[in-house]
Amino acid sequence: MKKQIPLSELERRINSLRTKMEKLCPDWEMIAIFSNINLYYFTGTVQDGMLLIPRNDDAVFWVRRSYERALDESLFTRIKPMTSYREAAASMKKFPETVYMETEIVPLALYQRFQKYFPFTHVKSVDKYIAGVRAIKSSFELSLMVQAGSIHQRTLEQYVPQLLKEGISEVDLATELYSIMVTEGHHGVARFGAFGAEIVLGLVCFGDSSIYPTYFDVPGGNYGSCPAVPLLGNRYRKLKKGDLVFIDIGCGVSGYHTDKTMTYMFGKSLSQEAISAHKQCVDIQNRIAEMLKPGAVPAQIYKNTINNLSPEFLENFMGYGNRRSKFLGHGIGLLIDELPVIAEGFTEPIEEGMVFAIEPKKGIKNIGMVGTENTFIVTPNGGLCITGDNPGLIPVY
Amino acid sequence: MKKQIPLSELERRINSLRTKMEKLCPDWEMIAIFSNINLYYFTGTVQDGMLLIPRNDDAVFWVRRSYERALDESLFTRIKPMTSYREAAASMKKFPETVYMETEIVPLALYQRFQKYFPFTHVKSVDKYIAGVRAIKSSFELSLMVQAGSIHQRTLEQYVPQLLKEGISEVDLATELYSIMVTEGHHGVARFGAFGAEIVLGLVCFGDSSIYPTYFDVPGGNYGSCPAVPLLGNRYRKLKKGDLVFIDIGCGVSGYHTDKTMTYMFGKSLSQEAISAHKQCVDIQNRIAEMLKPGAVPAQIYKNTINNLSPEFLENFMGYGNRRSKFLGHGIGLLIDELPVIAEGFTEPIEEGMVFAIEPKKGIKNIGMVGTENTFIVTPNGGLCITGDNPGLIPVY
Repeated sequence: MKKQIPLSELERRINSLRTKMEKLCPDWEMIAIFSNINLYYFTGTVQDGMLLIPRNDDAVFWVRRSYERALDESLFTRIKPMTSYREAAASMKKFPETVYMETEIVPLALYQRFQKYFPFTHVKSVDKYIAGVRAIKSSFELSLMVQAGSIHQRTLEQYVPQLLKEGISEVDLATELYSIMVTEGHHGVARFGAFGAEIVLGLVCFGDSSIYPTYFDVPGGNYGSCPAVPLLGNRYRKLKKGDLVFIDIGCGVSGYHTDKTMTYMFGKSLSQEAISAHKQCVDIQNRIAEMLKPGAVPAQIYKNTINNLSPEFLENFMGYGNRRSKFLGHGIGLLIDELPVIAEGFTEPIEEGMVFAIEPKKGIKNIGMVGTENTFIVTPNGGLCITGDNPGLIPVY
Repeated sequence: MKKQIPLSELERRINSLRTKMEKLCPDWEMIAIFSNINLYYFTGTVQDGMLLIPRNDDAVFWVRRSYERALDESLFTRIKPMTSYREAAASMKKFPETVYMETEIVPLALYQRFQKYFPFTHVKSVDKYIAGVRAIKSSFELSLMVQAGSIHQRTLEQYVPQLLKEGISEVDLATELYSIMVTEGHHGVARFGAFGAEIVLGLVCFGDSSIYPTYFDVPGGNYGSCPAVPLLGNRYRKLKKGDLVFIDIGCGVSGYHTDKTMTYMFGKSLSQEAISAHKQCVDIQNRIAEMLKPGAVPAQIYKNTINNLSPEFLENFMGYGNRRSKFLGHGIGLLIDELPVIAEGFTEPIEEGMVFAIEPKKGIKNIGMVGTENTFIVTPNGGLCITGDNPGLIPVY
C-alpha cells in the first residue's frame, strides 16, 4: 500500500544539498527544515517535525507527530520522537552560530520559538539551495512525473471534449474533472509554494473568465467560486455556444506534478485573430521546447523569444492588459511553481533532468485566453514533452 | 455575481480590532496584515497586498495584484495600487517603532523584506487580537455559516447513505462527496490555519483507517492518498460489509465554514462496545452544547467534562493510543481551526455570536473512530446546532 522513496534516493538528495552548501556557503554549520514539502523530499514522509542537518554530523529527523507514521512511511535512518524543541536542543553537542532555514516558508513566530531553544545568532536562507537540488530530478522522480503527464493528457485531450455540454457551469466541470483525474491516479491536490497561493485544481474558464485578473502571477485568469474563494470555477458562468474553453490545471502522482493547459472551441469556430494568435503561441512553445537542452540559459531563452515577437503580438501576451507575467515557463516537481524560471535573471545554465512547464498564452479581447502549456523534460535532444501533443483549440461541436 | 461584504461590516471589523488594541496594547502604533484570510476579513477580497492600519490615521489597503479585482470585489474605501514596499513606505508621514504583524503566518523572509522599507525596531504578534475579533461572528457571518451547515447536514445525513456501496474506495467516495457539496453550494475548499496543515475536504475513512495517525492535531486519522499527500482518502481501501465509516469534513459558503463528523455502520451492526462508546460521545457533545452560553469558560467546560469520564472511557478518547488531542472542540469561521479552543488554558469567558465545533470521539481497536461532531452557535439558551441532529452510526444495510 505504501509507495516509499528508496533510501538510496533519500541519501542522494541530502548529499546533493551538502555538496551544494560546501560549494556555495563556506560558513554553513546547520540546516533546519520545517516545511511539509521539503520534509517529504528529504525523508519520504509528511509529518509535523524538523529535519536538522549539521555540517559535521548525521542528519536527524525529529518528529512531533506522528512518530509512528514516520517510521511506517520513511526509510530515513535517524528518526527520533520529539515533544519539544527543548528536548531536541538538549541532544546537541554544540550550537551553531548560523542556521540556514526555509525563510520563505517558516513563519516568524515559528522561527522565534525555534531560536529560543537553539540560540544561534544568524539565520540565512536555505530556500534557493534546496530549490537548486530539487530542480534536477532523478529517474525515480521523472517516472512519477511521466505518470502524472499521462493522466493529464488523457483527461484534457480525450475526456474533456466529452464533458463539454451547453449549460454546464465552470465549477461543475471543475469538480467532474477533479473526480476523473483522481480516479485515473492524480494524488488529489495541486501544490504551489508562493506565499498565499492556494489551489485545489487550477483554472477552469469559459469565455472571458480566463482574462479576469487573479491575485497570483499566472497568465490566465478566473472568476472563481466567490470573492472569498477565488479558485476552482464559477457556478453562475454556464457554457454556451461560441465560448472559448480554457483549462489550466495541475496533476500529480505521489507528490510530483505536471502542468498543462488545453483550449477548446465550443459550438463554433473562434475568429481568425484568435486562431492565429493561438497557433503562434503553440509555435513559441515548440521553439522553446527545442531549446531545452543542457547548457541553455533560461534568461537567454526568454530574451530571444520575446525579442522575436512583434509589439502587436506582445500586447496581452502572457496576461491580459497590464497583468503581463514576466516569464514563459517555470520549473515543476513537488510544487507547480519551482525554480528555475524561464525569465530574466535566471542565468545559470539548465541541466539534464530538469523539468519545465512552458506556457505561452495570449489574451483576446471579449474572447479569453488562447495558447498552450505542456511539461517537458530537459534532454540532450531538447525538451521531451510528457503531457501530450494536441495543439489545442480542440473543436467541440 | 459578486457577494460583497457590506461596508458597515468591514468598518465594524476594523473598529473592533482598533478597540481591542487600545485596550490591550497601549504601545500599538501600526498593524500590518499580509495573509489571504485576514485581508479577506478586513477588506472583502483576497489579493496579493498588505493592509496597513495606523493608530492615528485611516487604514490603507495596498494591492500589488490585482488592483482592478480588488476594486471590483471590495467596498473598502482606501485601496491603492502598489508596485513595491518602497512605494508604500514613501507615503508614510512617520514610521512606527513597533509594528504588529501576523507572526504565526508571515514567513521570515517576507517580514525581512517589509522591514527593509518600513524600518521599525520591534515586531509584535497581532495574531491573537485578530483571532479574538474574528471569534465573534456578526449576523452577516452567522447567516453564511447556517447555509454551510445546511449543506453539511444534507450531504452527510441524507446523501452519504445512498453513496455507500460495497467496493467503493475511500478516495472515490471523497471525490463524489466533494462534487455533491460543491453543487449544493460549498465554496470548494476547507481552510486550516495551522502551519503545514493542508486540506481539500477532510477525513473519509473506512474501518481502522480512522485511527491511523496523521500529522495534524485531530482525533481522527486517515491513510490518505499516498505518503506525499496524506489527505483525501485511500484508493486501495475499499468499503466492505461490517465496516465503520467515519467522515469528518469541512463545508463552507462565501468563506465561512462549518465542521461535522458523521459515522455509519455498513452492512451490519458494530459491536455493543463500539455502539455504547459512540452513544457516550454523543451525550458528551450534547452536554457541552448545553454549556455553550455567554459567560461559560472553555477551560472549565474542558475540565468538568474530562473529570466526569472514567479512566477506561478516557483510553483512546479524542485520539487513538498516545495521540490524544487535548481539546474537545474549537472555534470555527473563515478557518476550521479558530480560537477559542475548548481546552485547558482558555480562561476567557465565551461570548454570544461565537461558534464552536464540538467533537468528542473515541477510537475502538480494530474498528475505527466512533463519536460525533457538530457546529454550534453560542446563545443565551446554549449552543444552537446548525449542522443537523442525526446522532450518527447510521445503519446502511
